[in-house]
Amino acid sequence: MEYRALKVRRQPEALRIVIDRPGQDNSINGDLIEDLHSALDLAEADPALRLIVLEGSGPVFCSGMDFADAARDATTEGGRTLPTEGGRAFYGLLRRLTTLPRIVVSVVDGRVTGGGVGLVAASDFVYASERSSFALPEALWGLLPCCVTPFLIRRIGFQPAYAMTMSTLPVTAARAAELRLVDELTDHAERTLRRLASRITKIDASVIADGKRYFARMGTSPEELEEVAVAEFARLMSSPAVRDRITGFATERRMPWETVR
Amino acid sequence: MEYRALKVRRQPEALRIVIDRPGQDNSINGDLIEDLHSALDLAEADPALRLIVLEGSGPVFCSGMDFADAARDATTEGGRTLPTEGGRAFYGLLRRLTTLPRIVVSVVDGRVTGGGVGLVAASDFVYASERSSFALPEALWGLLPCCVTPFLIRRIGFQPAYAMTMSTLPVTAARAAELRLVDELTDHAERTLRRLASRITKIDASVIADGKRYFARMGTSPEELEEVAVAEFARLMSSPAVRDRITGFATERRMPWETVR
Amino acid sequence: MEYRALKVRRQPEALRIVIDRPGQDNSINGDLIEDLHSALDLAEADPALRLIVLEGSGPVFCSGMDFADAARDATTEGGRTLPTEGGRAFYGLLRRLTTLPRIVVSVVDGRVTGGGVGLVAASDFVYASERSSFALPEALWGLLPCCVTPFLIRRIGFQPAYAMTMSTLPVTAARAAELRLVDELTDHAERTLRRLASRITKIDASVIADGKRYFARMGTSPEELEEVAVAEFARLMSSPAVRDRITGFATERRMPWETVR
Repeated sequence: MEYRALKVRRQPEALRIVIDRPGQDNSINGDLIEDLHSALDLAEADPALRLIVLEGSGPVFCSGMDFADAARDATTEGGRTLPTEGGRAFYGLLRRLTTLPRIVVSVVDGRVTGGGVGLVAASDFVYASERSSFALPEALWGLLPCCVTPFLIRRIGFQPAYAMTMSTLPVTAARAAELRLVDELTDHAERTLRRLASRITKIDASVIADGKRYFARMGTSPEELEEVAVAEFARLMSSPAVRDRITGFATERRMPWETVR
Repeated sequence: MEYRALKVRRQPEALRIVIDRPGQDNSINGDLIEDLHSALDLAEADPALRLIVLEGSGPVFCSGMDFADAARDATTEGGRTLPTEGGRAFYGLLRRLTTLPRIVVSVVDGRVTGGGVGLVAASDFVYASERSSFALPEALWGLLPCCVTPFLIRRIGFQPAYAMTMSTLPVTAARAAELRLVDELTDHAERTLRRLASRITKIDASVIADGKRYFARMGTSPEELEEVAVAEFARLMSSPAVRDRITGFATERRMPWETVR
Repeated sequence: MEYRALKVRRQPEALRIVIDRPGQDNSINGDLIEDLHSALDLAEADPALRLIVLEGSGPVFCSGMDFADAARDATTEGGRTLPTEGGRAFYGLLRRLTTLPRIVVSVVDGRVTGGGVGLVAASDFVYASERSSFALPEALWGLLPCCVTPFLIRRIGFQPAYAMTMSTLPVTAARAAELRLVDELTDHAERTLRRLASRITKIDASVIADGKRYFARMGTSPEELEEVAVAEFARLMSSPAVRDRITGFATERRMPWETVR
């Protein structure tokens, strides 16, 4: 299997997936979403495998939406693609992480922004190093973290998710651990992973599936919010103000508040 | 504009609202609710303004329902007013704080009790000094913090809201920060405010409105609980036991558990 | 009144209930559930009583389902009893703790596992000593903590409940306090109890009932999840794999992952 945006390797107890678009700050584009689905297919096809570990190459775990791609989309004829399809594709990926019969662990060592926070929030466990940070800057662009929100609220509750969205201020790893966006603050994630693996490998894959399904019925499921999220993302992404800001940044590195309209 | 219960001043980046009924421990009555609506009108009419800062004059931020007013209401012919109208008026004010297209920050430096906790819980951000405290003593009076509850649960989750209600014990500022009733524990709120303002002033007012509307759809909205809250408040406030306790306190400073019935 | 699984004594301000099946690690069987209902009847019949304090004898507060009983049930003709009736009986007990017009405090000093975590989660207040620990090992047996989950999510939110279930790893008392499964970490629970009692004894029993009823309407009620929980428990408990593991442990102390099928 050839990956364009990932490095993937099989360990005895886990499939290790490294987001690997260093030239693009590990941002999320169609390639990355497709590659992640392929890697998840691989993990699901292997009945002996219980754990999927998600990492980032370099100092950025994941920087969210690829603005270069988004700007291109918005300027070509087929420019409606990202607003209408991109949200659904990303939401579908996050939903899959929360439902597939494997335990997904994000091991974070670096910056996480925008949609990257969604990957983290949709993970079953999150281990992060001290130097990690988490931010939702979407509102500065005239956007909202539409697809991230249901998964983030599920993980950390309403108020911290709301405060991160509206303030746009980054959250340190230590604060993220207080908010429980991070389950364990550690510079030795391998040790924590081994401790988790020693338990997870003793659990039937069917029980992992049962557990995810059962918890989804406990009234905190993001499933029913999918249409709300996808529609709001499409609406905001179609706004000329948002498109101008994204294009300004992608082509001239202009910050969103410097964009004259 | 003449305010009876507030001091209001316009700063470059924020409308500063100070609750100012020092003789009545900054308690909530009809005047205060009307004044707050007027100040919010002012903030909404000013397109350049993004932030509203809510403070208390003196060592009490807000002490909740004005019992002198409540006792008067209960003894006059028109005594049905407070039970039936007071809850709706207060709930409406809290709802407006959570929906208006401005960021509302409560800066607390002192005691907050009863309905005052509702003002804090309905704020987008809460900064509090070490000497602040928060309490819901309603149950001692035979009441419940009906209107506060949906907003408080939204902010801090079910169990801490429930525990504050049933124990009636005050919560220190440090503990309130752990519960996330307080977003930042600081004796230098101006610095924290400036940091927030540096971001909020870069966000379109329309996105603030979008964000509040979007989060309200995430399944944690107090909107649908309004009728439940208003009805329960009216029922409890109409009870003779509650009326006796309120009158006993308002007229003779008798504590609720000393009221013989 | 004769209790088979409890020690019960009346204090001026509280009914003290001690789970007392030391030979069976204070596990939960039909006797214990019946005895607890009897003790709660006693508390409800006494209008002067506001507080119920739940404790465990010895170093185990409560170890969850009695596997010896469960293995017997599964091997006799009447073996369908526990899957179909056990879940409903246990859920009913937890529901009663969250609705009866008394304040229920769990004072924990030792290990709490499986269903024992349900008793704790359904308590109004939880005080625990440093040496206490909390774990949900059900998934190792091919089970899920079906009846515990709605009450645990109500108390600590989705993610920590989910993480405890899927990792099966024990949580220290200090961590449980961070997660708010424990309200106060203390080796002097009597002092904390007295402080609570000084307030609770000043509250009408009717207001305790009103408060529990009102909070149950705030959208976090486990009431509507009862059928979901009871059905899932019955389904899992009826699985031959689960039955083999339970019988293997009950008869030969075989760990669940050692059971060959």
